[in-house]
Amino acid sequence: MSERPTTPLLDKVHSPNDLKGLSDFDLKRLADELRAEMIWTVSQTGGHFGAGLGVVELTVALHSVFDTPRDKLVWDVSHQCYPHKILTGRREQMLTIRQKDGLSGFTKRSESPYDPFGAAHSSTSISAALGFAVARDLNGDSDTGHGDAIAVIGDGAMSGGMAFEAMNNAGHMGKRLIVILNDNEMSIAPPTGAMSSYLSRLYAGAPFQEFKAAAKGAVSLLPPPFQEGARRAKELLKSATVGGTLFEELGFSYVGPIDGHDMESLLSVLRTVKARADGPILIHAITQKGKGYSEHRADRGHATAKFNIATGEQVKAPSNAPSYTKVFAQSLIAEAEDDPKVVAVTAAMPDGTGLDLFAERFPSRCFDVGIAEQHGVTFAAGMAAGGLKPFCAIYSTFLQRGYDQIVHDVAIQRLPVRFAIDRAGLVGADGCTHAGSYDISYMTNLPGMVVMAAADEAELRHMVRTALEIDDRPSAFRFPRGEGVGVELPERGKALEIGKGRMISEGNRVAILNFGTRLKEVQEAAETLTARGITPTIADARFAKPLDEDLILQLARHHEALITVEEGAVGGFGSHVAHLLAEKGVFDTGIKYRSMVLPDIFIDQASPRDMYAVAGMNAEDIVAKVLTTLGVEVLTKRA
Amino acid sequence: MSERPTTPLLDKVHSPNDLKGLSDFDLKRLADELRAEMIWTVSQTGGHFGAGLGVVELTVALHSVFDTPRDKLVWDVSHQCYPHKILTGRREQMLTIRQKDGLSGFTKRSESPYDPFGAAHSSTSISAALGFAVARDLNGDSDTGHGDAIAVIGDGAMSGGMAFEAMNNAGHMGKRLIVILNDNEMSIAPPTGAMSSYLSRLYAGAPFQEFKAAAKGAVSLLPPPFQEGARRAKELLKSATVGGTLFEELGFSYVGPIDGHDMESLLSVLRTVKARADGPILIHAITQKGKGYSEHRADRGHATAKFNIATGEQVKAPSNAPSYTKVFAQSLIAEAEDDPKVVAVTAAMPDGTGLDLFAERFPSRCFDVGIAEQHGVTFAAGMAAGGLKPFCAIYSTFLQRGYDQIVHDVAIQRLPVRFAIDRAGLVGADGCTHAGSYDISYMTNLPGMVVMAAADEAELRHMVRTALEIDDRPSAFRFPRGEGVGVELPERGKALEIGKGRMISEGNRVAILNFGTRLKEVQEAAETLTARGITPTIADARFAKPLDEDLILQLARHHEALITVEEGAVGGFGSHVAHLLAEKGVFDTGIKYRSMVLPDIFIDQASPRDMYAVAGMNAEDIVAKVLTTLGVEVLTKRA
Repeated sequence: MSERPTTPLLDKVHSPNDLKGLSDFDLKRLADELRAEMIWTVSQTGGHFGAGLGVVELTVALHSVFDTPRDKLVWDVSHQCYPHKILTGRREQMLTIRQKDGLSGFTKRSESPYDPFGAAHSSTSISAALGFAVARDLNGDSDTGHGDAIAVIGDGAMSGGMAFEAMNNAGHMGKRLIVILNDNEMSIAPPTGAMSSYLSRLYAGAPFQEFKAAAKGAVSLLPPPFQEGARRAKELLKSATVGGTLFEELGFSYVGPIDGHDMESLLSVLRTVKARADGPILIHAITQKGKGYSEHRADRGHATAKFNIATGEQVKAPSNAPSYTKVFAQSLIAEAEDDPKVVAVTAAMPDGTGLDLFAERFPSRCFDVGIAEQHGVTFAAGMAAGGLKPFCAIYSTFLQRGYDQIVHDVAIQRLPVRFAIDRAGLVGADGCTHAGSYDISYMTNLPGMVVMAAADEAELRHMVRTALEIDDRPSAFRFPRGEGVGVELPERGKALEIGKGRMISEGNRVAILNFGTRLKEVQEAAETLTARGITPTIADARFAKPLDEDLILQLARHHEALITVEEGAVGGFGSHVAHLLAEKGVFDTGIKYRSMVLPDIFIDQASPRDMYAVAGMNAEDIVAKVLTTLGVEVLTKRA
Repeated sequence: MSERPTTPLLDKVHSPNDLKGLSDFDLKRLADELRAEMIWTVSQTGGHFGAGLGVVELTVALHSVFDTPRDKLVWDVSHQCYPHKILTGRREQMLTIRQKDGLSGFTKRSESPYDPFGAAHSSTSISAALGFAVARDLNGDSDTGHGDAIAVIGDGAMSGGMAFEAMNNAGHMGKRLIVILNDNEMSIAPPTGAMSSYLSRLYAGAPFQEFKAAAKGAVSLLPPPFQEGARRAKELLKSATVGGTLFEELGFSYVGPIDGHDMESLLSVLRTVKARADGPILIHAITQKGKGYSEHRADRGHATAKFNIATGEQVKAPSNAPSYTKVFAQSLIAEAEDDPKVVAVTAAMPDGTGLDLFAERFPSRCFDVGIAEQHGVTFAAGMAAGGLKPFCAIYSTFLQRGYDQIVHDVAIQRLPVRFAIDRAGLVGADGCTHAGSYDISYMTNLPGMVVMAAADEAELRHMVRTALEIDDRPSAFRFPRGEGVGVELPERGKALEIGKGRMISEGNRVAILNFGTRLKEVQEAAETLTARGITPTIADARFAKPLDEDLILQLARHHEALITVEEGAVGGFGSHVAHLLAEKGVFDTGIKYRSMVLPDIFIDQASPRDMYAVAGMNAEDIVAKVLTTLGVEVLTKRA
């Protein structure tokens, strides 16, 4: 599609050690080559793009000045780690990124010693780096040595409460710790929140301040070759530093803002900081997301499919059905047209959740709270207490951030917040950090909570309507990443009867009780089984809570075996079914009960289908499960 | 014990409406009576004390100036709600506080319309109040009207990341919202973190600023009787306001600091703010925790047992055994004496977790991160990645705040963080908001996690040692609030074999498989059952993960019935046992399997024993369960 760029300098870099001999001029050239290489490699694979392009110079400068992996470099979220991976011995594997058995799209401890702490969720880097700083100081030289701890965090991630907690704690502790605020005025979506306007004001004017900790006397301490750079840094710092009070008030020395694409500035500042920092220090670097390729796009090329470098055209497979996300958004908009009390909450994911569409139609009724799931959940609870009908649309994996708020503010108070849980189950290229494996279990054990899972996109539409009508208690409905199965979509959703499942098809011997989008696989399995003379009964539970006790007991009564299927870990739907069967004495007399759940492992990235193959939850696995449960010999090995 | 004070003014106050006619002078007298009444009532009942004494004037002023319950007053954490309860029609029930069928020790929606949003965990009030503000503006006059939304939050709670998220979002939105920072330089423990030093600096000097939004022109807008007050407010505000930049940078107008015990100042400021605020505003009030009685104690009388007002002496039942908390702390200290890599993390609960003892012995190895569970967990993960051996001591209910960090930073990276989960199970007087009901379920479904529960204090000691030795993956051990059972304590803990339970006593027909401190009840039940001719086998699982499969299958094979018992909700230990039994085909041929778990309700405060009676998990309930499971007629009704 595009030719691989020539990269004579980069070709000689096999580890950060190879940067040590390079001149500042060559480091700058190396950064240019690294950017070209990254553009080419992502054009071949797709992946997170804009963030990496924004930190090319920073990555080179950090690995040149600091002594990784002895110094611990922690990338927040780590969407921006592609240049880092290329420099740290993983260049040749970049074409496997986000693919089965390939590199992770994120930093990952098991992948490289240059990844001392993995990430994928936001705002964790300062906490982790502080942990390394404490370990360094307690362990002493002999052990991990006096390696530096460096967190690189974006302005979006800095607005997460956890980052504030860490800054507050680190500022108080006073240990040497380096935080680099990579400020591109973008997280994934355009920025929201007061912190963002504050950062803008920081470099828009404000009284100048002298940079204290880092610049003071640095010149004399540095070896001769660096003296010019240090003098330059001192100049630069003296003239460029402004504001920074918020961070200083939290106990950090503040350096910045500096141009994060100016290699000279970066090297000067980092060298000075390395030589002089004696406590927590924040370096504020201004960068452009997508620098050098996609900086002019609205989303700065946050993530991309494979693309043609010359035209920018992305190569995407045609879709056969609308995505679940889009069906959710359209269904919610339809309901909101009729009911002015419907409001929506997203935590910095307006595009990902489809709420960008809702916000276009109802700007005053859509709230992007920033990377702030804790606040988002309780804010929704407050709106519910105030008489509104909030839909809180958060990915399953990120909703873990708001778990205590779901328990304490929503469930205990029985407030009718509706949780639209997107990306439920295994998600593909983002791998195990983004798997939505636990929501069934952490929602179903809360008294009063209604928990639904859509088996297809039409069901999702009905569940949006159902959740809207549940006005006396909280509810949740989950749905996966990706396209629907192509069923006909009703114009509008109809409210489902709470706690009632539905029969899909009647058979005998074995009943398969489905919860969620494995239904298609169950039906495929049933076809294979029917061909082998066993026609299973299929039911779709719709609700994990409250359970359809009649349906479940009926299925148990009339079948030799009962198998539940769900896209979640043990402790969820199947566990509640088992509890019911136990309490009702169904086990007393024997039933071949099995529960198909996600296995007790973290599953690495691959296509969702491949991940479900690892999980043993595709049609052929369901066939095998039925046959072994019934004691029928399984003749064919799984493909 | 002490005479009830005479309170002529208070006696006429049956609701906040009765404050409306009172002069400022009488409001001040009322506050004095309210304080005396509160001291007396808590002397009779015990309960949270210092926080309420600190906000007596503020409570009177708020209810006098604002129009509750139309205006929504949200108390953060709500330890400080006792004066509020007395003024809002609950005075006569104060003697029932924190007792079975009595008033909650916290605000609670179901208890009073004056409690628009309940609390008990920290840092939620701004999010909730912002929800009310949005609802007010979207609903319009006709519905909830233009009621104000007011959050009262302590300086400790303000340091929680969630509060920062809410401030960031509210500052950006710009809606009228009143946040009162009740700054007593104390949360529960003395304060920690940079925010705390920042607040101290705010009123220690700094350049004076003019108070802009609230004071401007207020005089002319207020009705005549208030003009003097408003003039006074303007004076006061002009001369007293300093700093406040951190809040202003987040988009809030800042008023303060003001003396939170000076009724005149409070009334003036609140009236001015009510008349003039046109966006988010933060009022910074300085108060003394324990004001008027316990302000000179180290903990300012945070919580107390019943006490003698004259002497301050507390009435406490003598204890027969050391508390689990203390056994944990002593065991950890013993291990830390030998292993310099042992470090400990608490989130603002050094006393509650026993880590105050650890900090005394090892000040440089104990980290109080503030009310910051998210950060605390990942900070511990960072220390583990850096080669230390962190013990993260957090109550079960508060650990919910760090759930995503447990998944994302600890479990996925398989880092050996040890979670010491105190207050597991039902906790008594603090009620349902503090129940540790979900940790078994939310920890056991994480791959690689080791999950233990102590059956008694000696077991806890062994589990501390066991967790220390588990150095290749994360682990957790849970233990309840309160005293141990009085077993002999070994000098030092011995490492248990991972994933192995123990037989307690052999019997027949029914096996009871215990997980946690219900063991004593199980043994008591067994005695009753033996007297009736049924001697159950008793085993203690020790581990919910990994399960002792041999033990469980053995028990299943040799008994007619198998009953699991745990102090947690469905989805935990019993669910994993059921999953195992299903997969192994044990249900195929029939077994009377039952799982005793916490029921699907939130249980209100009472003694732990009474709460477990409601849960149906005391000895007599276990007896009944065994008998009904075996089909033996239950002749005696439960007492």
